[in-house]
Amino acid sequence: MAGLEHDPGGVVALARDLIRCPSVTPDDGCGINALAAVLEGIGFSVTLLPFGEGAARTPNLYARLGTGHPHLCFAGHTDVVPVGDAPWAHDPFGGDIHDGILFGRGACDMKGGIAAFVAAVRLYLQKTPAPRGSISLLITGDEEGPATNGTVRVLEWMQANKQIPDFCLVGEPTNPGEMGEVIKIGRRGSLNACITVHGTQGHVAYPHRADNPVHRLLALLGELTAAPLDAGSAWFEPSSLQVTSLDVGNTATNVIPARAQGRLNIRFNDLHTGADLSGWLRTVVARHAPGAEVAIAISGESFLTQPDAPVEALRQAVRAVTGHVPRLDTGGGTSDARFISRYCPVAEFGLVGASMHKVDEHVALADLTQLTAIYCGFLEKVMG
Amino acid sequence: MAGLEHDPGGVVALARDLIRCPSVTPDDGCGINALAAVLEGIGFSVTLLPFGEGAARTPNLYARLGTGHPHLCFAGHTDVVPVGDAPWAHDPFGGDIHDGILFGRGACDMKGGIAAFVAAVRLYLQKTPAPRGSISLLITGDEEGPATNGTVRVLEWMQANKQIPDFCLVGEPTNPGEMGEVIKIGRRGSLNACITVHGTQGHVAYPHRADNPVHRLLALLGELTAAPLDAGSAWFEPSSLQVTSLDVGNTATNVIPARAQGRLNIRFNDLHTGADLSGWLRTVVARHAPGAEVAIAISGESFLTQPDAPVEALRQAVRAVTGHVPRLDTGGGTSDARFISRYCPVAEFGLVGASMHKVDEHVALADLTQLTAIYCGFLEKVMG
Ligand SMILES: [Zn+2]
Ligand SMILES: [Zn+2]
Repeated sequence: MAGLEHDPGGVVALARDLIRCPSVTPDDGCGINALAAVLEGIGFSVTLLPFGEGAARTPNLYARLGTGHPHLCFAGHTDVVPVGDAPWAHDPFGGDIHDGILFGRGACDMKGGIAAFVAAVRLYLQKTPAPRGSISLLITGDEEGPATNGTVRVLEWMQANKQIPDFCLVGEPTNPGEMGEVIKIGRRGSLNACITVHGTQGHVAYPHRADNPVHRLLALLGELTAAPLDAGSAWFEPSSLQVTSLDVGNTATNVIPARAQGRLNIRFNDLHTGADLSGWLRTVVARHAPGAEVAIAISGESFLTQPDAPVEALRQAVRAVTGHVPRLDTGGGTSDARFISRYCPVAEFGLVGASMHKVDEHVALADLTQLTAIYCGFLEKVMG
Repeated sequence: MAGLEHDPGGVVALARDLIRCPSVTPDDGCGINALAAVLEGIGFSVTLLPFGEGAARTPNLYARLGTGHPHLCFAGHTDVVPVGDAPWAHDPFGGDIHDGILFGRGACDMKGGIAAFVAAVRLYLQKTPAPRGSISLLITGDEEGPATNGTVRVLEWMQANKQIPDFCLVGEPTNPGEMGEVIKIGRRGSLNACITVHGTQGHVAYPHRADNPVHRLLALLGELTAAPLDAGSAWFEPSSLQVTSLDVGNTATNVIPARAQGRLNIRFNDLHTGADLSGWLRTVVARHAPGAEVAIAISGESFLTQPDAPVEALRQAVRAVTGHVPRLDTGGGTSDARFISRYCPVAEFGLVGASMHKVDEHVALADLTQLTAIYCGFLEKVMG
């Protein structure tokens, strides 16, 4: 079939096989199991690590080839976001190839990335049959969902089993427009807060007999949004606070309501911690609305991997294949790299993410081949 | 029956008869028709003035006794607010009398006031069989509801038929705690605004690609609420702006929403007009959120009746009966006096309103008698 005549390392064939597993979050096992079989065929020692019970049961796998150092780990996820309501021109789980483009849910996020890593290992082993170091894969079936029983649990298992690598490369799509643009060496932290202000209901004609919780909420949100949190740091853009919802739901135009609620999200850089920001939020809220409820959930702290030797090796591998010197970046959303960063240095580089989570998600076959070559070059430089 | 042995002018008997008409807004005609019969019996020329069609059909009446000047009009409403969900100790439409208290929906707001006016006319005519001036009644069956086909339409009819009085007295309950406390000589205006800000939806991790309408709404409401509208005027307390609702309804913590809405009410004194405030609102909104929708409804302008001779006569009548010098006030909610003020000077004095719109609404028989005496004294002073 078109596109498979020249398929170095079998990256296109494997990406298509993985797309044909409809592994919407959480992966029901089909993506993880298909990958396990391929890895065992190359010589990896594969451990299936399902965690959670019942509906929360999540398949994961850890695979290792060799025992030496340096130990390089490739991390990613086989689960994909749902197809969505809008119609697709291509079967989301069909793996259609048209004019050099592979279509399907997960094509770039990130079954294509997983396929490129496997293909890169194949190519690397052809050149280096007895490598000095070792290679592992940390693959979860739930990155797009709650992620409770995924990478976090596998890392705990790896720690307990002395499998923490020297460096980890996450294969999320990091390039906005074309291959070679961006390597991520950190991510901002993320905090959600829900603030509920209680007042005293009353008639608008008698405001002195009421205590308007809306005005208290406006005042505290006004203070929270009055100034930027910071001006950015060496590797990070400025932190950002966004108020995402305001909810009172009072339809009576002549009534001062009893309750007002606001929700906000903070994406914060390495100048803050979730704890510091929580304290600041509670202090400002208490000043304007004593007794208000503040529910805070920190979904991740910020992290930064210093751009040392492994990151530089990755950068050179990207430049050698694409001709671009990739930007070292810490922007965008969160990924499982936030969990990995607690155990070892981690960077992220993958495909072009423009179509991720969208209708007709796709990847260029040429990009799959380039990514395979980049990962292979990175293995050669790091493993020595 | 207890309470009816000494009933000057028949005020208690009439109040009870009116309460026994379950004339929840809009009056189905029973209150208006019962009153029409009584007024014809005294010698009034009664015109029934139903306005509106179908479900909006509202009974009203205009009655006049005599044709000379001064022409004093008594205004009020026979409709009552619903009984509500909480249980009553007394039948809301039974007219129970216990220990000198008459219970029932409308007892103080304002069937008792209407009864006192009729009783006062009876007493006045006993003393002055051939009065120099004339007396009229403007009674609507919808003051508590939309009020579209009530006092507004009757006033238009009165204007067309050359029936505009020299002075109007509205019988709403004006006394917070006991008889003689408050005469209202004005009311604040009321304006409702609904502000809808449209932005550009996006992910919280990429705020520069979105346009958060919540932040624009917070900024404009912050400016609108930053300072008092004024410090009050000679006869008015300060104007008050209350934000009554905020509505976004975004449950996704990682999404910047596309739309945010706020609602507010302004109760404004004679330093403002609805038009001036509307212009100010639109200017502030446009500065922070160009393109936002601002829907404004002015339910009444402020008005003030100068405390000239008729008000002074009313004040003296109140003092003669109760021993209190009533305060001249412009606070509280709106009433149909806002419509009447466009045609002639208007003041308001009635019963004690503490139980109005509540469970077990009631009025003291002694208060009904006092109000009858006050209205009668006022007639004597004004009609000369
Ligand atoms: Zn992903
Ligand atoms: Zn009333």
